[in-house]
Amino acid sequence: MVDIAIVGSGLMGTATSWPLTDNGHRVRLVGTHLDGDIIRSCREKRYHPTLKRTIPEGVTPFFVDEIEEALDGVEIIVSGVNSLGVHWIGRKLGPYLRPGQMVIAVTKGLEAAENGDLLILPDVVYSELPEGIRDQVSLAAIGGPCIAGELAGRRQTCVFFGSRDGEAVERLAAAFCTSYYHVWTTTDLQGLEFCVALKNACTLGVGLAAGMLERAGGVDNADAHMYNTAAALFAEGCTEIDRMVEIFGGTRSFAYGLPGAGDLYVTAQGGRTVRLGRLLGLGHSFAEAREMMAGETLEAAEIVRVLGEAFPKLTARGVIQPDDFPLLRALANVVLHGQPIDIPFDRFFA
Amino acid sequence: MVDIAIVGSGLMGTATSWPLTDNGHRVRLVGTHLDGDIIRSCREKRYHPTLKRTIPEGVTPFFVDEIEEALDGVEIIVSGVNSLGVHWIGRKLGPYLRPGQMVIAVTKGLEAAENGDLLILPDVVYSELPEGIRDQVSLAAIGGPCIAGELAGRRQTCVFFGSRDGEAVERLAAAFCTSYYHVWTTTDLQGLEFCVALKNACTLGVGLAAGMLERAGGVDNADAHMYNTAAALFAEGCTEIDRMVEIFGGTRSFAYGLPGAGDLYVTAQGGRTVRLGRLLGLGHSFAEAREMMAGETLEAAEIVRVLGEAFPKLTARGVIQPDDFPLLRALANVVLHGQPIDIPFDRFFA
Repeated sequence: MVDIAIVGSGLMGTATSWPLTDNGHRVRLVGTHLDGDIIRSCREKRYHPTLKRTIPEGVTPFFVDEIEEALDGVEIIVSGVNSLGVHWIGRKLGPYLRPGQMVIAVTKGLEAAENGDLLILPDVVYSELPEGIRDQVSLAAIGGPCIAGELAGRRQTCVFFGSRDGEAVERLAAAFCTSYYHVWTTTDLQGLEFCVALKNACTLGVGLAAGMLERAGGVDNADAHMYNTAAALFAEGCTEIDRMVEIFGGTRSFAYGLPGAGDLYVTAQGGRTVRLGRLLGLGHSFAEAREMMAGETLEAAEIVRVLGEAFPKLTARGVIQPDDFPLLRALANVVLHGQPIDIPFDRFFA
Repeated sequence: MVDIAIVGSGLMGTATSWPLTDNGHRVRLVGTHLDGDIIRSCREKRYHPTLKRTIPEGVTPFFVDEIEEALDGVEIIVSGVNSLGVHWIGRKLGPYLRPGQMVIAVTKGLEAAENGDLLILPDVVYSELPEGIRDQVSLAAIGGPCIAGELAGRRQTCVFFGSRDGEAVERLAAAFCTSYYHVWTTTDLQGLEFCVALKNACTLGVGLAAGMLERAGGVDNADAHMYNTAAALFAEGCTEIDRMVEIFGGTRSFAYGLPGAGDLYVTAQGGRTVRLGRLLGLGHSFAEAREMMAGETLEAAEIVRVLGEAFPKLTARGVIQPDDFPLLRALANVVLHGQPIDIPFDRFFA
C-alpha cells in the first residue's frame, strides 16, 4: 500500500484509480490546467463529471498548481494525459521526480523524427525529462482493450503493461492487478506502443465501412450490411500492426493478442475514431469531417498524419517497402492530402 | 465461361452464384433433400426465400434427384452443405465425379479420429469418395469473413481459397474473383480449415460477454458495457487459433488475417453462435440453451464438442499441453459436461 499520483484526470487516467484503491493504495488525482472543472467537482461532490461516477474513497483530488504537494513521496505516477500533453507532462514532472519512481502512461500516439523514424511516446517523455533524473526513473505504458468507463465499473478487463525495466513492470503490475483488472507484462515497450498507436489509426479504417454502407443507400432489402468489408479492414489492420512490429522489432504475437486485435476490437465498438471513419466513408473530405467534429480531439487522425509524413521518408531510406501498409497509406492520403477515401483491397494481405 | 454446380442451396452456397454469374459462368444450383422448398421457389419465382433475393439470370435450379444431370460436364462443384452434410455430399458426388474436376466447400467444421487427431472436412469428404476418383479431383475450401447475404448484395468481401493443389486453387480464384469478391489463395488447406472451424468456436466465447452483461444487470448508470471483456475473449480466441496452427502446422499469419481475426470479427457481429454464447453467458446450461434454440443448427457447439473430446486425448499423447486452449477448454466444459461457464482469464495469453 503506497502513494500513487495520477496526473491528468481524464477518463482513462482517473479510471485506473479503481483498481489502485481497491488494492488499498492511496491515490492523488491531479488535474491538468484543462481539468479544473473536473477537479472542482471531485473535491466538492466526489463526482467525476465525464466518467459519470463517484470517485473511490481513497482518491484525493489536486489542482495542477498543487502538483508539487501531490507528487511528494509517491512511488508510482500515472500519466493520464493524451498525446497533446506528452511534452507538457515530461517538463511538468521533471523537477519533482525522484530516483526509483515509476511513471506509467495511458497515452496513445506516435511522433516522428526529421528522418521519418517513429518515436514512441515514453521516449518523447524521456527526452523532456532533466538529464540528471531521466535514467533513474522507470517509464512504462499500458496497452490493450480497455474502455475507461468499464474499468471504473469493475468489468473484467485484460491489459498489457510494458517497460524496458523488467523489474519495474512487475512491480507496477502487482500494484494494479485485481480480480477484474488482469495485467500481463512485457519488456517490449516499443512493440506495445506501436500497437497502441496503430490500432487507433486502423480503427479509422474499420469505421469507413459504416459510412460506405450509408453512402450506398444503407442496409438493402435483404438486410445486407457491410460487415464483410469492415472485417476485411479489421484483418488488414491487424496485418499492418504485425508488419510494423516485424519491421521495427517487436513481439509478433501482439498483432493477434490484446494489444493488436483485442484493442482494435474494443475501439471499433464506438467512439470518436469510428465516427470520424464513418464521415470519411460517407465521402466527406478530412477537412469537412474535421469541421463536423469540431472541438473533439482526434488522436487517430494525428497518428495517421505522423505515419503519412514518415512513410515516404522510411520508404526512401529502404526501412519499409512501397507495398507495406496499404491501408494506413490510403488513410494518410485522406488525412494529409485531402483525397477521398479509396480502399486498395487488392493490395491487402500481401 | 464454364459450367459450375453448387450442391446445397443454403445461404452461403447460393451466394457464391453472384460472383460466378457476374463472371459469365453458367451455374446449376442443386438443392439437397432438405432444400426442396428453396428449389421450388427458385424455379417458380426465381426467388431464394432465406437469402431473400431474386437469383441471378445465369442460375438454373435443380432438385436433388436431378443431380446427375446437374453435374454433367461441370468443371467446378461448390459444396454448399453444412457440417452435418459432409459425409452425405462425399457419397452423393462420388459416382458422378470426373478426373480434373474441382470441388470447393463453404463448410465449417472439424471431426476427430479415435485417437484425438483432428480432421479437416475436405479430408472427410475425400474419405467418402470412391478410391478410383478421389486422387483425380482437387478439393478446396473457402475461409475468411463472408456473410452470405452481403456477398449476394455485392458488398466488398475478401476471402481465402485453400487447396493442396496449387494450380487448382489459382484456377478457382480466377473463376470466382470479381471487383467486389477479392480472393487470396493458399496451399495451406489444413491451416485455413482449422481457422474456419476455430473462429466459429471462439465466437461462442466472444458472445458470452453480452450474456454476462445482462446477468450483471445490464449497462450501468455510467453506460458501462462489457466490451473490454468481449475484446479479451476475442484476443484470446485469436491467440488460440494461432496456437492451433502452430501446433498442427499452418500459416501463422492466418491468426491475425482474414481466416482468423477477420472471420472472428464478422461472425461476432451477430447470428446463431453469438446468441448461443449470450445464453451461456447469462448462466444457462448448454442443455437449456440448446432447448431455447431448438431447431437451429449449432455448428459452433458441434466444433466445441469435437475439440472437447479430442483435447484430453491430444494432451495425453503430448501433442498439446495442459495449458493450451484455456478458452476452448472452458467452452468444452459447458458444452460437453453441462458446467456453468467459468472464464479462466488468468490462464489466457500464456
